[in-house]
Amino acid sequence: MASLKIPASVPSPAEDCEQLTKAFAGWGTNEALVIKVLAHRNAEQRKSICEIYAATFGKDLLKDLEKEVSGDFERALLLWTLCPAERDALLVNEATKMLTASNWIIMEIACTRSSHDLFMVRQAYHSRYKRSIEEDVAYHTTGDFRKLLVPLVSSFRYEGDEVNMTLAKSEAKILHEKISDQAYNNEELIRILSTRSKSQLNATLNHYNNQFGNSINKDLKTDPTNEYLTFLRRIIKCLTCPEKYFEKVLRYAIKGLGTDERALTRVVATRAEVDMERIKEEYHRRNSVPLDRAIAGDTSGDYEKVLLALIGHGDA
Amino acid sequence: MASLKIPASVPSPAEDCEQLTKAFAGWGTNEALVIKVLAHRNAEQRKSICEIYAATFGKDLLKDLEKEVSGDFERALLLWTLCPAERDALLVNEATKMLTASNWIIMEIACTRSSHDLFMVRQAYHSRYKRSIEEDVAYHTTGDFRKLLVPLVSSFRYEGDEVNMTLAKSEAKILHEKISDQAYNNEELIRILSTRSKSQLNATLNHYNNQFGNSINKDLKTDPTNEYLTFLRRIIKCLTCPEKYFEKVLRYAIKGLGTDERALTRVVATRAEVDMERIKEEYHRRNSVPLDRAIAGDTSGDYEKVLLALIGHGDA
Repeated sequence: MASLKIPASVPSPAEDCEQLTKAFAGWGTNEALVIKVLAHRNAEQRKSICEIYAATFGKDLLKDLEKEVSGDFERALLLWTLCPAERDALLVNEATKMLTASNWIIMEIACTRSSHDLFMVRQAYHSRYKRSIEEDVAYHTTGDFRKLLVPLVSSFRYEGDEVNMTLAKSEAKILHEKISDQAYNNEELIRILSTRSKSQLNATLNHYNNQFGNSINKDLKTDPTNEYLTFLRRIIKCLTCPEKYFEKVLRYAIKGLGTDERALTRVVATRAEVDMERIKEEYHRRNSVPLDRAIAGDTSGDYEKVLLALIGHGDA
Repeated sequence: MASLKIPASVPSPAEDCEQLTKAFAGWGTNEALVIKVLAHRNAEQRKSICEIYAATFGKDLLKDLEKEVSGDFERALLLWTLCPAERDALLVNEATKMLTASNWIIMEIACTRSSHDLFMVRQAYHSRYKRSIEEDVAYHTTGDFRKLLVPLVSSFRYEGDEVNMTLAKSEAKILHEKISDQAYNNEELIRILSTRSKSQLNATLNHYNNQFGNSINKDLKTDPTNEYLTFLRRIIKCLTCPEKYFEKVLRYAIKGLGTDERALTRVVATRAEVDMERIKEEYHRRNSVPLDRAIAGDTSGDYEKVLLALIGHGDA
């Protein structure tokens, strides 16, 4: 359910590199050509382009992109061109350094990637930053947020469909007890959310809903101003219905005056190759306007063009 | 520094399988032949033997071994024949099921394997048990032990040699403060032990020793009957000098009346291909008797023979 469009016959990485140098040549940059090439190649193809570019010209494509373009368009192109694991490693690293609460970007990456992909991010983080993700996350967070985030980024959840219904019932009961007692930072609650497979968790939360009459997220909404409760609800959304979570991030990034370009760019760059079609469907349903029209209304120029290309607008 | 001895010219896996069926044929088992084959092959070679055995005879070598041999010899052969990641997955799984405190077997595996090898164990655990290690460990432990064990088994430590001396100083100070306050289950202390690279941790603990006049393990020995303190000291030993840790496990397994065969077997089977030569050296230095003589004095029969073969006795 990726939105990325790849041409039926893909040029060789060498041909793509030639097009890119053509786009960079002389005064100014041919942005349309850059988009035509990079925004229509999958992760593996972009990786080959970067490798061939380095081997042919002895230069780093990402650094050349930085010189040629700027602003939101630059960030979108750079994030997109990076391979997924390196991109996520970069996003987590940025998030650990921000002073403002960017815990939820770390959480989003930990909870919406597959176990294997999350492990690839941890490997990429080693090579790029010479430290481990959990090390930086643990160092830069405190209190209840740390208690949740460290196990989430360290998790390697089982991904099979097997569900233990007895366990689902007993753990739904534990969750309900802890939430009723407002023990939101309880160890057992954190254990269940951070270690169980997504299938198992889903069974547990379904049972919660059936048995106690409310969805868990409704029960976690007693105080809408409590940041930690918001965080818990987002974790549950990421783990059980990521496309709804991403729809909401997009909705808030676009709505009102001004746009949250960083959020918009992040979601488009990280989901175009994964589940953007599902996210677009959710977006349209929830906002009564298609995502491409919403993006076109809120952005402009090459930034608009690259986002629309990535969400599947036009031909490859 | 492995102790395993492999013949200069290794027979093909098919030839080895033939020898094994010969050893299993008729009444009784030719144990010497089984040892001659299996106790002198590395992990990759044993894996090929298992694969060829299954492909040729349509049977599981491990199951056939179970039928042919028994007791301590059986356990030693089975543990040894498994590939390292599967063996560790099995040991962790057994440990989560035991009622008695076997937390330290889980800790030993989490702290003495390389980051990559520990990840392989987590993968093997998925395939074998359809759950994640952290899930089972978190479910089967409680309190302070859980707080330590879950991050330890989930860790993917950076393995480079880079050391940040400023950080080493500041974290040595944190450790010393927490230990002076007897806050042994403090979050910061757990964060440092469970996330820092082994090189970084070593620098921190060296600084601790230089700055505060005692090794951290001495400061953690205020109450020798406190199980949690013992556990912390073992973690530090596993992370900074695993060969000394394993020497001690062997010493306690062998000394006095009776032998702790499970511990003896575990250490020999898991370290023969890794650092058994260093462990033997430590053992000899600390006990004034070579490990092979100590094992020969405490065990007998085929069990003795397989252990001695694995620690490098005799010719391959």
